[in-house]
Amino acid sequence: MSNSRFEVIAEDRHSRARYGKLILTHGVVQTPVFMPVGTNGTVKSIEQGRLKELGAQIILTNTYHLYLRPGMEVIKHFGGIHNFMNWHLPILTDSGGFQVFSLGRLNKVTDEGVEFKSHIDGSRHFLTPEKAMEIQMILKSDIAMAFDECIDANSDYMTTAEATARTYKWAKRCKESHNLEDQLLFGIVQGGVYEDLRIRSTEGIVGLDFDGYGIGGLSVGEPKEVTYSILDTVVPLLPSDKPIYLMGVGTPDMIVEAVKRGIDMFDCVLPTRLARHAMAMTSEGNLRLRNARFRFDESPLDPNCNCYVCKNYSRAYIHHLFRCNEVLGMMLLTIHNIHFLLEFVKNIREKIKAGIEV
Amino acid sequence: MSNSRFEVIAEDRHSRARYGKLILTHGVVQTPVFMPVGTNGTVKSIEQGRLKELGAQIILTNTYHLYLRPGMEVIKHFGGIHNFMNWHLPILTDSGGFQVFSLGRLNKVTDEGVEFKSHIDGSRHFLTPEKAMEIQMILKSDIAMAFDECIDANSDYMTTAEATARTYKWAKRCKESHNLEDQLLFGIVQGGVYEDLRIRSTEGIVGLDFDGYGIGGLSVGEPKEVTYSILDTVVPLLPSDKPIYLMGVGTPDMIVEAVKRGIDMFDCVLPTRLARHAMAMTSEGNLRLRNARFRFDESPLDPNCNCYVCKNYSRAYIHHLFRCNEVLGMMLLTIHNIHFLLEFVKNIREKIKAGIEV
Repeated sequence: MSNSRFEVIAEDRHSRARYGKLILTHGVVQTPVFMPVGTNGTVKSIEQGRLKELGAQIILTNTYHLYLRPGMEVIKHFGGIHNFMNWHLPILTDSGGFQVFSLGRLNKVTDEGVEFKSHIDGSRHFLTPEKAMEIQMILKSDIAMAFDECIDANSDYMTTAEATARTYKWAKRCKESHNLEDQLLFGIVQGGVYEDLRIRSTEGIVGLDFDGYGIGGLSVGEPKEVTYSILDTVVPLLPSDKPIYLMGVGTPDMIVEAVKRGIDMFDCVLPTRLARHAMAMTSEGNLRLRNARFRFDESPLDPNCNCYVCKNYSRAYIHHLFRCNEVLGMMLLTIHNIHFLLEFVKNIREKIKAGIEV
Repeated sequence: MSNSRFEVIAEDRHSRARYGKLILTHGVVQTPVFMPVGTNGTVKSIEQGRLKELGAQIILTNTYHLYLRPGMEVIKHFGGIHNFMNWHLPILTDSGGFQVFSLGRLNKVTDEGVEFKSHIDGSRHFLTPEKAMEIQMILKSDIAMAFDECIDANSDYMTTAEATARTYKWAKRCKESHNLEDQLLFGIVQGGVYEDLRIRSTEGIVGLDFDGYGIGGLSVGEPKEVTYSILDTVVPLLPSDKPIYLMGVGTPDMIVEAVKRGIDMFDCVLPTRLARHAMAMTSEGNLRLRNARFRFDESPLDPNCNCYVCKNYSRAYIHHLFRCNEVLGMMLLTIHNIHFLLEFVKNIREKIKAGIEV
């Protein structure tokens, strides 16, 4: 894949923040970008058309989940995940690595790959770098991720060093076995909270020359200062003409700090998960809509928001919906929260374009 | 309320079927009409804007549910149910009678009213005809229903006769206490499966001169032929210049038969309830979307349907959503099923207008 797929258009004078365009098979993505997560081929509680109206440019779907359900025969039959789920803008697929290690019941991790049992029915599966590539090539996502070893955030140095070394070997095999035109392949930097391991991992992965770079294993419990410090170490070692993706991060404060440190892409289940738990993201912090204080509240979720929900519905009504366990409650909060975060990142882009400090 | 609120525009030469216009405070309703049910002030799993796009002209909300949650103080604060739920087309409220008798735990039924315990928290309440009017006048629905006594469908003659007599007395008190301009009040015909009681009930209720007439206590387990026979008896006794509403009926076959017998209005939870149970209503009968035979099925829910869902999604994808317990599954089926039933009734209207046999 040629470098020209990513173009940096504007750079912040005050930080490493940058505005860019990433040209993918299903469309052009403006960065920095937030990617809503559609685990099972659906961003939970929102319809694809509505998601597009909200301005979502690209979504993430999970290889592990789609491999188990509906399974690759179905995806093949539909010619890829785009057609299957009726989403015709870009899609990034993760490698399945994180889910195999966090959701599946692990049987054995060897240099060859990972044997695990499905969290759904206990069936046995074996995932290797080659298999992860094969699955993502069937999914035909716009961006595939290399298969990495994800370890506990509290792992000691030796364990982390071993996993990081293995992640490098697996990345090499991913690169070698990946051969789908029109699909970018991103490598993943690991190394836990250890600066020297992060440096070694970055140098190794960069040496393999990927189309972009994910930074994994962060925001998994370590203090935010540690995350930021690692970004300060890693990002300058990555090629400046490739998109950089901070995996699994999506709180507004961390997005800002990461953008300043040169991050272009984010994903997080936060807006959809908060919606299911009756929480609205607002410019004044999160609102717990189950709280009785909203019973008579005629105001919109966020007085500074111009989304469809804030223009049409009151806090009192949404409070009522959650009290009655009505599905519409989470449908409305999902629209609002995704709008909130997409607008939040859009504003960051506008600032960078306008030369205003992020 | 003046008679001129309802206008019969076309009549079928082959049956009692008629096409009419019912002029309500929040809009004009073309009849025959199907009213989706929004029990708690939300038609389950569909957003109000989408419901309007589908062509819903009027919806029903439940007095019993709204009285318990959010409660009348909240509704008063919002100036009625329309503002509270952001639905600015017509709304019909039932009287709460049916729910008090079917959902609440009954303590005592006297001529005065009904003492019952809430199905939600066990709190005690007393509902009378006057109270049912007061609540509906606070809700400010376009159409209020008289408070009636709903008894078991298998009740014997004496029990049914007593309940029917009480329904008459209550209807009189409803009529006397109702005083909200811009809200129509419909009386309800009861009488179970007993022809003479139905005749007596109809004559009594008609004598009170309501703005329209509901026919209650049907389609509750009796054979369809019994329902149709009762309609054949009751409808000719009702004034032909008032709308007639068959309460709780909404299967396509029964709608056709009831329209032929002179019914103008219908409500039913069927399309939304079927959607939650993964059932799609189609021109070829109901589809059980959980069935494994849909796993690879690229076709739309109904090849003869032009709804948003059928234009964009496959049976296989919706099957997958239900397998994964994803909310989008019932969201999509709800859109489709409501569209299906609204189109079904619209086609009946078109036939009557065009002089084609229904």
